[in-house]
Amino acid sequence: MLVAGEPVVGTEGEVRAVDPATGAALEPAFGAGGAAEVERAARAAEEAFDTYRATSPQERAAFLERIADAVEGLGDELVERARAESGLPEARLRTERGRTTGQLRLFAEVLREGSSTGVRIDPARPDREPAPRPDVRQRRVPVGPVAVFGSSNFPLAFSNAGGDTASALAAGCPVVVKAHNAHPGTGMLVAGAVAEAVAASGLPGGVYSSLIGAGTEIGAALVGHPLIAAVGFTGSRAGGLALLAVAQARPQPIPVYAEMSSINPVYLFPDRLTDDVATGFVGSLTLGAGQFCTNPGLVFVPRGGAGDRFVATVGAQVGAAAGQTMLTAGIGRAFVDAAARVAAVAGVREVGRGSAGPTGNAPAPAVFEVDVRDFLARPELQAEMFGAAALIVRHDGVDDLLAATRALEGQLTATVHAAPAEYADVARLLPALERRAGRIVFGGWPTGVEVNHAMVHGGPFPATSDGRTTSVGTLAIERFLRPVAYQDLPAELLPEPVHPDNPWRQLRRVDGRIEGLA
Amino acid sequence: MLVAGEPVVGTEGEVRAVDPATGAALEPAFGAGGAAEVERAARAAEEAFDTYRATSPQERAAFLERIADAVEGLGDELVERARAESGLPEARLRTERGRTTGQLRLFAEVLREGSSTGVRIDPARPDREPAPRPDVRQRRVPVGPVAVFGSSNFPLAFSNAGGDTASALAAGCPVVVKAHNAHPGTGMLVAGAVAEAVAASGLPGGVYSSLIGAGTEIGAALVGHPLIAAVGFTGSRAGGLALLAVAQARPQPIPVYAEMSSINPVYLFPDRLTDDVATGFVGSLTLGAGQFCTNPGLVFVPRGGAGDRFVATVGAQVGAAAGQTMLTAGIGRAFVDAAARVAAVAGVREVGRGSAGPTGNAPAPAVFEVDVRDFLARPELQAEMFGAAALIVRHDGVDDLLAATRALEGQLTATVHAAPAEYADVARLLPALERRAGRIVFGGWPTGVEVNHAMVHGGPFPATSDGRTTSVGTLAIERFLRPVAYQDLPAELLPEPVHPDNPWRQLRRVDGRIEGLA
Repeated sequence: MLVAGEPVVGTEGEVRAVDPATGAALEPAFGAGGAAEVERAARAAEEAFDTYRATSPQERAAFLERIADAVEGLGDELVERARAESGLPEARLRTERGRTTGQLRLFAEVLREGSSTGVRIDPARPDREPAPRPDVRQRRVPVGPVAVFGSSNFPLAFSNAGGDTASALAAGCPVVVKAHNAHPGTGMLVAGAVAEAVAASGLPGGVYSSLIGAGTEIGAALVGHPLIAAVGFTGSRAGGLALLAVAQARPQPIPVYAEMSSINPVYLFPDRLTDDVATGFVGSLTLGAGQFCTNPGLVFVPRGGAGDRFVATVGAQVGAAAGQTMLTAGIGRAFVDAAARVAAVAGVREVGRGSAGPTGNAPAPAVFEVDVRDFLARPELQAEMFGAAALIVRHDGVDDLLAATRALEGQLTATVHAAPAEYADVARLLPALERRAGRIVFGGWPTGVEVNHAMVHGGPFPATSDGRTTSVGTLAIERFLRPVAYQDLPAELLPEPVHPDNPWRQLRRVDGRIEGLA
Repeated sequence: MLVAGEPVVGTEGEVRAVDPATGAALEPAFGAGGAAEVERAARAAEEAFDTYRATSPQERAAFLERIADAVEGLGDELVERARAESGLPEARLRTERGRTTGQLRLFAEVLREGSSTGVRIDPARPDREPAPRPDVRQRRVPVGPVAVFGSSNFPLAFSNAGGDTASALAAGCPVVVKAHNAHPGTGMLVAGAVAEAVAASGLPGGVYSSLIGAGTEIGAALVGHPLIAAVGFTGSRAGGLALLAVAQARPQPIPVYAEMSSINPVYLFPDRLTDDVATGFVGSLTLGAGQFCTNPGLVFVPRGGAGDRFVATVGAQVGAAAGQTMLTAGIGRAFVDAAARVAAVAGVREVGRGSAGPTGNAPAPAVFEVDVRDFLARPELQAEMFGAAALIVRHDGVDDLLAATRALEGQLTATVHAAPAEYADVARLLPALERRAGRIVFGGWPTGVEVNHAMVHGGPFPATSDGRTTSVGTLAIERFLRPVAYQDLPAELLPEPVHPDNPWRQLRRVDGRIEGLA
């Protein structure tokens, strides 16, 4: 582990990565920690907080860029370790590393742009009647130390220095990571890079810690620790809900931003039941063994001959596909079980099933089909099959689509393929999609999430535990900020972002209008 | 009741207002509703939602202004009814009516200003390598029908057409109000005015309903109703926590914005232990019988002769003050009980106690004193005494203040009085105050909350259930919005705020920069 810049070897059992392709244990073993290390990391984070949050946005931007540089400085060792621990291909991991450093640098840009502190100023009007108007200034302050849970499926981009860490650090919050047990070596390499950047930036070590724990207790202890102020999590629905329950049962409840489960409905209109769309769908479904939160697990296809032909094409393509090694043996087993549960539901037919891959942990991709009425009658068909499996729902038109969409749980994405002549029908559907999903994709596929300013990777429960936010993209910084107002403070006491001299050069909203707007 | 524009007389008991000064029941009795009326109002809100949220910000602004006009159109009848039901003085109610209509008109300004929809656009770059960059556009959409609970202490400004209602309607959410049982007549008058504005704006009646219920069941049914998407509440800690528990236990949990309890610490530095400050404090404490969420219930005064003299002055002034009629007999009894509990704690001394007022429901104001060490040892001394009572904590300087502040629960406000020579000490305290309170007041008093763009009337738990927001001021609109991203949608399908033609003239952030900034 790494606690406030110090290497710590836990004594509560050990965690060892496993090559998911062979099942072979990888060296070294990592000593696992428990409540003592949670206490030490949380306290160090708390002690670092006031120093860290007093840094200017420009200083924090430089810090984030140093982390990106240090992660890149790990070179091939990082990619090789992540490959061994996750089974993910090298090319994917190089791309993911670019995404990881890219989002650190994007948050640096956000900090330099000047509106992340959300400054609002309503100046005094001493001559207002019947009472003078006070001077009121608002800025957003970081909430406090943040607990981040590394994900299984993004060992770089949603783990030790991933999106949650980057946005929390950008907000001014120290971070305590609970590294994912599937890739402790990758986590420690990245943690070392972050610690290097902490030191190079002259920041207190408590700004960043990374814990390893053998079971789920360490995560519960972290979320329950009184000095932790918010939680970022990407993982399973059961895991996210367990942390949410811990957070809500605290004497002082804290927000949990858990990105949990989504089956990402796809709506194919009649004019788009083409072979190209079938190929695009199967490609998106099987990409990375289907291990994406945005995997298209539900596809609405109209009944009739064109739909039948489309489904047959999909079935043939899936039948020709081979399984890929999944992230862990447990994830592989859970996928097989989830797909079997869907297959066993009355009315569900198998459309196509590929072959298992060459390793013992590469289950076959599969696609199933069901009538919309059976789908509506059986909510269990909405359960996520995390991996390369999907359910096609056959329907009789937009009224069916509306009914099915309204019956859906919250989703990260909804995808539409339609021709211009069908836009009137799409327009009927759109308001329902907006209520169920955080992102609406047209003519493409939900896998592949741009990291930019407009992205929403969030959505109504249970896609996330808090559908007011996003975990990808620059809006994610807002999860870790809260507003504070200062009334009639003398200039000598005003914090920099709301000081009349504006030393941090923040964009300011004065009397409700953004300054400098033409 | 008023359900979707229709008058409805409930059959589950009746609610009758009581003159809090005399205990006399007021005419008429209002038929109370239950689950059936909740269902009817929630369904009407849901049915109105898509129509209402499709209105332009400009149309919603005009609607809010019509509500303000209609509330003013109620004239003296409204003030007289509110006075009879609440016991509040006429002048106060006229001011409160101005605040109510003022905040409706302020939200209209916000809608016209153009940034409330939060538009962010990252345009496509087809030639990006290795993959083309999609077009991604983000806007915020309203969350859905909102349940609003009228407060006891603001029969106008935080009740039927108060701050929660105004911000939810501004966001594009239909509203179902649970009117406060202490002022059902006031609530019905205002509900009628809102319904008049709904009709005059050509909106569906379901945009607004106002329910009356005899017990707490109707509120729980409302918060638990599957079509309700968020909750605004101002009231007691027990009431807020009960609604929060209902919301979290739903199959789909929803956000609850409950403004609950706060004792609003005041820090008096040695150079400000003046008679003027004593007078200001007692004035703020006893204003409106102390029935404000921002009432200064905790005052830090240094030990020593100057502090002793200040406490004696406060004691004398409080001793000379008379109680005022409280909002309800129940609130009066709860105040007496809460003050008695504080008085009974070991180490607590009474500094001064006024006389009861002339009505049977006007308990005497009181001020107590305790040593900081006893205060730290007894968390029960942080319990709110809702009414004109305060606890003075005597201490030995900034280290004591820091320790006591860190031990405080979350607060709406923190107030500081200090001379320039003491600013260095205040600067040490400020970071601790920022973590505990939503608003920091200097040289004034926390009662009196400006409705503007910079105000924060919120704070960490248990001041509110969600310290990331405010319930007063224009930022309050954000509570009822969530972001949605549109990826590669053809222009024909893009909603107005993210359409390339920008027909609603929204401020837009393009590639992370606000358009039009010099």
